[in-house]
Amino acid sequence: MKNLLKVAEKVSYKKLSDNYLFSEIRQKTSSFKDADGREILDLSIGDIAYALPPSSVNAMKKAAEEMGDNARKRGYSPENGYPFLLNAIASYYKNLGVKIDTDEILVGDGTKSDISLFPDIFDRSNELIAEPCYPVYKDAALMRGNKLYSVCGNKQNGFLPEPDGIEKKPYVITLCSPNNPTGSAFDKEKLKKWVDFALETGSLILYDAAYSAFSGDGAVKTVFSVKNADECAVEFCSFSKFAGFTGIRCSWFVVPEKIKLSGGKTLLSLVKRKRSATFNGVSYVTQRGAEAALSFKGRKECEILIKKYLSAANKLKDFFSKTNLFFTGGDNCPYLWIECPNTKNSFEFFENLLVKTAVVCTPGVGFGNAGEGYFRLSAFQKEDTVNEVLNRFSSSDIFKDSTSGVLSKN
Amino acid sequence: MKNLLKVAEKVSYKKLSDNYLFSEIRQKTSSFKDADGREILDLSIGDIAYALPPSSVNAMKKAAEEMGDNARKRGYSPENGYPFLLNAIASYYKNLGVKIDTDEILVGDGTKSDISLFPDIFDRSNELIAEPCYPVYKDAALMRGNKLYSVCGNKQNGFLPEPDGIEKKPYVITLCSPNNPTGSAFDKEKLKKWVDFALETGSLILYDAAYSAFSGDGAVKTVFSVKNADECAVEFCSFSKFAGFTGIRCSWFVVPEKIKLSGGKTLLSLVKRKRSATFNGVSYVTQRGAEAALSFKGRKECEILIKKYLSAANKLKDFFSKTNLFFTGGDNCPYLWIECPNTKNSFEFFENLLVKTAVVCTPGVGFGNAGEGYFRLSAFQKEDTVNEVLNRFSSSDIFKDSTSGVLSKN
Repeated sequence: MKNLLKVAEKVSYKKLSDNYLFSEIRQKTSSFKDADGREILDLSIGDIAYALPPSSVNAMKKAAEEMGDNARKRGYSPENGYPFLLNAIASYYKNLGVKIDTDEILVGDGTKSDISLFPDIFDRSNELIAEPCYPVYKDAALMRGNKLYSVCGNKQNGFLPEPDGIEKKPYVITLCSPNNPTGSAFDKEKLKKWVDFALETGSLILYDAAYSAFSGDGAVKTVFSVKNADECAVEFCSFSKFAGFTGIRCSWFVVPEKIKLSGGKTLLSLVKRKRSATFNGVSYVTQRGAEAALSFKGRKECEILIKKYLSAANKLKDFFSKTNLFFTGGDNCPYLWIECPNTKNSFEFFENLLVKTAVVCTPGVGFGNAGEGYFRLSAFQKEDTVNEVLNRFSSSDIFKDSTSGVLSKN
Repeated sequence: MKNLLKVAEKVSYKKLSDNYLFSEIRQKTSSFKDADGREILDLSIGDIAYALPPSSVNAMKKAAEEMGDNARKRGYSPENGYPFLLNAIASYYKNLGVKIDTDEILVGDGTKSDISLFPDIFDRSNELIAEPCYPVYKDAALMRGNKLYSVCGNKQNGFLPEPDGIEKKPYVITLCSPNNPTGSAFDKEKLKKWVDFALETGSLILYDAAYSAFSGDGAVKTVFSVKNADECAVEFCSFSKFAGFTGIRCSWFVVPEKIKLSGGKTLLSLVKRKRSATFNGVSYVTQRGAEAALSFKGRKECEILIKKYLSAANKLKDFFSKTNLFFTGGDNCPYLWIECPNTKNSFEFFENLLVKTAVVCTPGVGFGNAGEGYFRLSAFQKEDTVNEVLNRFSSSDIFKDSTSGVLSKN
């Protein structure tokens, strides 16, 4: 047997848990066999239930065909995206009443990759993370060895933590709204508190708006609708959810030209410099599909998808409204975030739910300690699936003690 | 005007030059107007001149169509690639006489992204880079603050540096063969010296084989054909060049299960852990296109492309063979690496060549100081383009002093 390499693992890696949450759930789920032979209904991952918008599919087919023609084929994409897509994204913001220059937009292959670029750019930064949160925020910061601070969502603040009482120093703050996992969303007034805190402390906000297309009237659709956010915030968006691109991979983020680090360089120039050394752009075929999703016709098609997912969320919401369990979400984002009945151990609840109903949820603790005692259900599901899930919930005893008796009569 | 953020740029970023080489050349080139109105012929970037193989185009169209069908659409890809593509890649290795398990293969969106994962995994690693090299190797290591060592190619070693005389300690060694920029390629005997050095010192080799599909009979096609390389080497490959995927983005790398770091963990587990937090897989459409490129029919189609590019390289080689300039490459890779005539300043030569012939080359210094005094020509060109380039070379005086007089008579 061979000797070990004399190269050592980075110290900061040891702080990571060994398995990434979703992989762990996938493993537990795939080894599970339901005693009654029921199909496993997986509401743990926010993956798509419906096909892509026809406009995007047609655009991708056409683009693939171009790639097969010597006169029309395309080589390397401009690193940060083709002008046709950058223009479509700038128009998206214009429709929201916000002016963004195409130079400030960077097209990527997913918010996960885009966000993970950031902790690496700053010198010994303090990372302030609103928990519970998408585990990637923490992983990326921990792997780079940055110092982590957190501010917690809870029942009292409706899982929308505010900056009051946080020690005033410069942070890199990660916020997500509409929120994964809690489905809650900032209104303008609450988000303004964060922007003001960032401006006061010289902090930077990384604002994950991957679910903004689902947000209703009261919720903020872009951080840049808050005054002066373009002096302290970067916004991340994704085609994954509203256009069904989870398997196609396209995202964008906006780094306002105005933001300068204390060394005097613009954040935009540093981000572009880093990307030029680590990324070669997004597939032309994908970019054409994304452009089509933002076209007039494409947006109408996406709206149909959005309505379907929000209607599924609404059904779940109706169910839990009849329980005495605290929950958030469902209105501005197809996630529901629900108090575990009869236990504070969310992994135990996950296993219990699986055994009793063959339904897979995400245990809240996977989104940080602030998520313990809760679970997440994804409503990125077909109507039939949600109906069947609710049948199983009603006929099992898992939510029985939490109801007023209405459900157990069914 | 707004105050600066109080968040500072990472110290190690200051070691980077401000502009990435290729962006700089692009800028100089795009602002250039030829006095005689000739079309600018760009031989500076290794981008494709021909369309993609028909098999890949058809597979991508079919895959896009699947994405438009509720019953056949795909959501998130398995993070490290679909089994159909992993199997195709394992077969590729089997044809080279090497056994690779599908678990050891990771599909990515480009060798640039794949390689840049690595410096980040190791604790204060010593990076040993064979120069001249693709600037990304250095950038990625510098950005992470790792210590850089280099070993240089030169006229004497034919731009194939050997490990003799290097201080014996554990490094992360980056090698590229067939080489970008020099076009030179290791034979088994020379590469074995590096593998033996790595085994002796507990070092890891990152082996960039992005151009291996172009390599001729004497050259190594995979590092794993060298005995025990699977105990110390990771191999990177790309569809960009042999299948024309520069605008589609697909790559793979192999991390042998056997490789363990000094902490005892396998390198494979660390790489997968890192990827799970920073990457969401490659587009299904792209993966189907890549699978098709490795099919029997696809490989035949790729061979046609490969022959065309090598034939273009051969024409350039013939020209420079008639000069007294030292050069490498052209046989195992469509790059030529040529001594600058009459100057040691490769940027000066680049500008001189542009003004005199409206042909764009890459100045060698962009690939590190070891590249100074040389320039690179990319033969990823159509035949007509190369013919026109050679006409201009012959009719200008730029290579005149370097010839035996044959060319200037034309």
